[in-house]
Amino acid sequence: MNPPISRFPVPELKDLPEDIRQRILAVQEKSGFVPNVFLALAHRPDEFRAFFAYHDALMEKKGPITKAEREMIVVATSNANQCQYCVIAHGAILRIRAKNPLIADQVAVNYRKADITPRQKAMLDFAMKVSQQAHAVDDSDFATLAAHGFDQEDMWDIAGIAAFFGMSNRLANVTSMRPNDEFYSLGR
Amino acid sequence: MNPPISRFPVPELKDLPEDIRQRILAVQEKSGFVPNVFLALAHRPDEFRAFFAYHDALMEKKGPITKAEREMIVVATSNANQCQYCVIAHGAILRIRAKNPLIADQVAVNYRKADITPRQKAMLDFAMKVSQQAHAVDDSDFATLAAHGFDQEDMWDIAGIAAFFGMSNRLANVTSMRPNDEFYSLGR
Amino acid sequence: MNPPISRFPVPELKDLPEDIRQRILAVQEKSGFVPNVFLALAHRPDEFRAFFAYHDALMEKKGPITKAEREMIVVATSNANQCQYCVIAHGAILRIRAKNPLIADQVAVNYRKADITPRQKAMLDFAMKVSQQAHAVDDSDFATLAAHGFDQEDMWDIAGIAAFFGMSNRLANVTSMRPNDEFYSLGR
Amino acid sequence: MNPPISRFPVPELKDLPEDIRQRILAVQEKSGFVPNVFLALAHRPDEFRAFFAYHDALMEKKGPITKAEREMIVVATSNANQCQYCVIAHGAILRIRAKNPLIADQVAVNYRKADITPRQKAMLDFAMKVSQQAHAVDDSDFATLAAHGFDQEDMWDIAGIAAFFGMSNRLANVTSMRPNDEFYSLGR
Amino acid sequence: MNPPISRFPVPELKDLPEDIRQRILAVQEKSGFVPNVFLALAHRPDEFRAFFAYHDALMEKKGPITKAEREMIVVATSNANQCQYCVIAHGAILRIRAKNPLIADQVAVNYRKADITPRQKAMLDFAMKVSQQAHAVDDSDFATLAAHGFDQEDMWDIAGIAAFFGMSNRLANVTSMRPNDEFYSLGR
Amino acid sequence: MNPPISRFPVPELKDLPEDIRQRILAVQEKSGFVPNVFLALAHRPDEFRAFFAYHDALMEKKGPITKAEREMIVVATSNANQCQYCVIAHGAILRIRAKNPLIADQVAVNYRKADITPRQKAMLDFAMKVSQQAHAVDDSDFATLAAHGFDQEDMWDIAGIAAFFGMSNRLANVTSMRPNDEFYSLGR
Repeated sequence: MNPPISRFPVPELKDLPEDIRQRILAVQEKSGFVPNVFLALAHRPDEFRAFFAYHDALMEKKGPITKAEREMIVVATSNANQCQYCVIAHGAILRIRAKNPLIADQVAVNYRKADITPRQKAMLDFAMKVSQQAHAVDDSDFATLAAHGFDQEDMWDIAGIAAFFGMSNRLANVTSMRPNDEFYSLGR
Repeated sequence: MNPPISRFPVPELKDLPEDIRQRILAVQEKSGFVPNVFLALAHRPDEFRAFFAYHDALMEKKGPITKAEREMIVVATSNANQCQYCVIAHGAILRIRAKNPLIADQVAVNYRKADITPRQKAMLDFAMKVSQQAHAVDDSDFATLAAHGFDQEDMWDIAGIAAFFGMSNRLANVTSMRPNDEFYSLGR
Repeated sequence: MNPPISRFPVPELKDLPEDIRQRILAVQEKSGFVPNVFLALAHRPDEFRAFFAYHDALMEKKGPITKAEREMIVVATSNANQCQYCVIAHGAILRIRAKNPLIADQVAVNYRKADITPRQKAMLDFAMKVSQQAHAVDDSDFATLAAHGFDQEDMWDIAGIAAFFGMSNRLANVTSMRPNDEFYSLGR
Repeated sequence: MNPPISRFPVPELKDLPEDIRQRILAVQEKSGFVPNVFLALAHRPDEFRAFFAYHDALMEKKGPITKAEREMIVVATSNANQCQYCVIAHGAILRIRAKNPLIADQVAVNYRKADITPRQKAMLDFAMKVSQQAHAVDDSDFATLAAHGFDQEDMWDIAGIAAFFGMSNRLANVTSMRPNDEFYSLGR
Repeated sequence: MNPPISRFPVPELKDLPEDIRQRILAVQEKSGFVPNVFLALAHRPDEFRAFFAYHDALMEKKGPITKAEREMIVVATSNANQCQYCVIAHGAILRIRAKNPLIADQVAVNYRKADITPRQKAMLDFAMKVSQQAHAVDDSDFATLAAHGFDQEDMWDIAGIAAFFGMSNRLANVTSMRPNDEFYSLGR
Repeated sequence: MNPPISRFPVPELKDLPEDIRQRILAVQEKSGFVPNVFLALAHRPDEFRAFFAYHDALMEKKGPITKAEREMIVVATSNANQCQYCVIAHGAILRIRAKNPLIADQVAVNYRKADITPRQKAMLDFAMKVSQQAHAVDDSDFATLAAHGFDQEDMWDIAGIAAFFGMSNRLANVTSMRPNDEFYSLGR
């Protein structure tokens, strides 16, 4: 028997509203499995819809910050928040998007020692400040980002991702959301 | 001249997508003014839509936890995160919903000393743990909530609100979102 | 029946030593009510006398730091210490002294976002460091204050107020000192 | 040349108001030297008077908590606040009052490992909570103290001393108040 | 060109004292590569010898705590200390010793959510307390361990491993010790 | 009867392996008493040997950092870790090696206020960062040390001592290792 994927009730696919069912089937089609976050959050369809709309707006956005870099933000801040689901699932996505089997573990444990560029380090410094002490963010933080070539929209992106996954980390920890076994070895 | 309401560009109402414009006009109609969070977040229409859909799913939900109690969660956790916008705006809403001019300031500064019931204190203890150290939430926290009569859906509600406003607090701090002057005296 | 204003015994006015009774009557005359701190601390007459002598020496002092600015220090540091009595009572005094209905809530929640001058922000940065990590205060802090035009006596004033209210915050939290209802709306 | 005893101006005895001069001469008579706190704080006569009146009200008080135990509170909380003057000066007083050359260093570094009674440990647990997180003091803390035989007046004493020296620690750190050389070896 | 494995000079095998060279060759023989910790620490032969003697005394010891469990302690505490080398290298060893490809990532990010027994969770609770706040370890911690069947020698083992790797984590962070690429995929 | 020197079993000298017995007798010969750390750690002979080999490699090393300065590192970091044994025992050694009866207490409580040189303060700033947040050590820390004349080997020494005593502090706190009475007054 498999361990539970959430401390809360998990709906069956067939019982879900059609739009959510279709979204999940599409992910399954693409990934070969259904990441547990979809099933755990489907317990609350309205929140599910908002969560993934928000997620996609931030993570699928085109722009100077690459998709791999967006995943770096997720992985670094999620380990600071001790979120097992997010570090393991987004670690896999980061490895795949960066085509680099080492980067996710490096960024998770201590991004200051990771094989990243100074620009990426500045991005993660800011993301971590938003995640851990947003009240103290000030002009000097924005100036540092600008000095690394980030424009205003990039700054919003970084902050948005750090803030959104701060929420996601808390939900995953409260629900004891379990990462799928598949994630651990993807992209290695 | 008025001080800026966000460090980022703020769109004019007339330039917004119609659904967002309508939503904002409806709020203005009801409240007599447009809370700045609507204008500041409208800079990113997709994120705006997801943000308010999520907000409404959590804050407009019917259930044993009253709307005033939901606002207590917002106010207590937002002060812990030093979020000026959320404490001041939701403090106003809390005063109105609780029909109590004192409760918001009490809950913001130290909810342990507020005029609330033991059940409400247990709710806020849990919300603060989700907000500040969600990684350590465990069975004993759920047992304490259950002993105060909260069921599983209530627990999700509390956690969801604390997590969502953790995101909101970070966005407001990064954007230097300014509370409308109207909020300070509402409901006093 | 009114909720208690202190976890400890609260004397009646008629039973108090004459000097303390006179002091309290004078405050009542001036303010229209007796702030609970006077009654709660009167449980210990000698400590009462020392407390208010110290308070007045710091808060009634003439000098380049205005009375409103002194109250800003109280409000900002008291919220960091989660002291309900001090934030609410001195928030009222700050509103009155600054003739500004918004300033107290802004300074309480996150002074970095408040409508204050750079000189006032430097004053509060220092006050918060004294309040939260005085062991690390060093020459660079004094140099920053000097660069904003504060002289040595001003520096002592700021530190003295932050230190004194650090004590006051702890006393108020331990005694569960209750702010008078009047304070919440004063000066709004 | 001797190192300065304060970062701020230190008055000469002959220039002080007579009451302060007499108080200092009396201490010198009794101790054989003038503890630097008297000279450093004499820079502000009104604050000096209030400070020592408060100090004496708490530290010279008769009651079930002995003078040595009061000094234990000072020493433990002052090391938590990294206050060199208070740990060294009150460490000396503690050794003398307890007639125990070991107790001060033990209590300063980690009172949990000191040669003290369970009742004294409960007293210091409470004092440290008042010193470091007074906002969270609640009924359970008072119940623990009561179980060790402390009555309400004792609880006020412990809290008052922890709060007063929290102020004193901050003043000493900001002024870089230097402990007299005499203190280091007294009572050993 | 490979990135450096240490911020400090790294000796060549041929220049090392014979005992150290032999130890390293033996590891290479067994593992198929030389873990970088051996090369980085060989910069200081005497410290190298003491380090590995200590390591082996704790990690190769027979006893009720299995080798896999010892590695759990290393992985959990090393992530709390943000030590990239130790989490990644000992994560590999943990996977191998536990014959479980998932356990290392789970334990690293949040051991409270890992697939471990209650006894193992108690072991890690204690290890984390030793790692993060050893000053507060007290009788109740030992009683909890005893209730899970740990005897006195086991308690020493857990504490010793947490303390030793606390040192190791600091050395690895200061030297910017780089985990070998081989570790990331071992045992998956 | 004497209080126990360790929570764990303490072997008798006659039952110890000969090399350990000889080492202890040599210390006794030189110091006039056996520091309790030797007896407490002798419970585990292999760990004892590694511990003291490591200790000597770091503390007996010749170099630009004097033996007194090495002890300063121990005393400052050990008080941050609330380790009674290390502060008291190494405080004594520091007084003796520095031929200064005041220095140990100053450095223990707040080294920023101690009678030390700017170079020594930079050394302790770095040692404290290694001790308390090694994950954040970066190039700027090494540059600061270099500006004070420390070379690469010195930097390793400082870090090594801070890391080693971080381990030692944890072992002493877990074992409740008791400082010998002799240490308190040595060198005063």
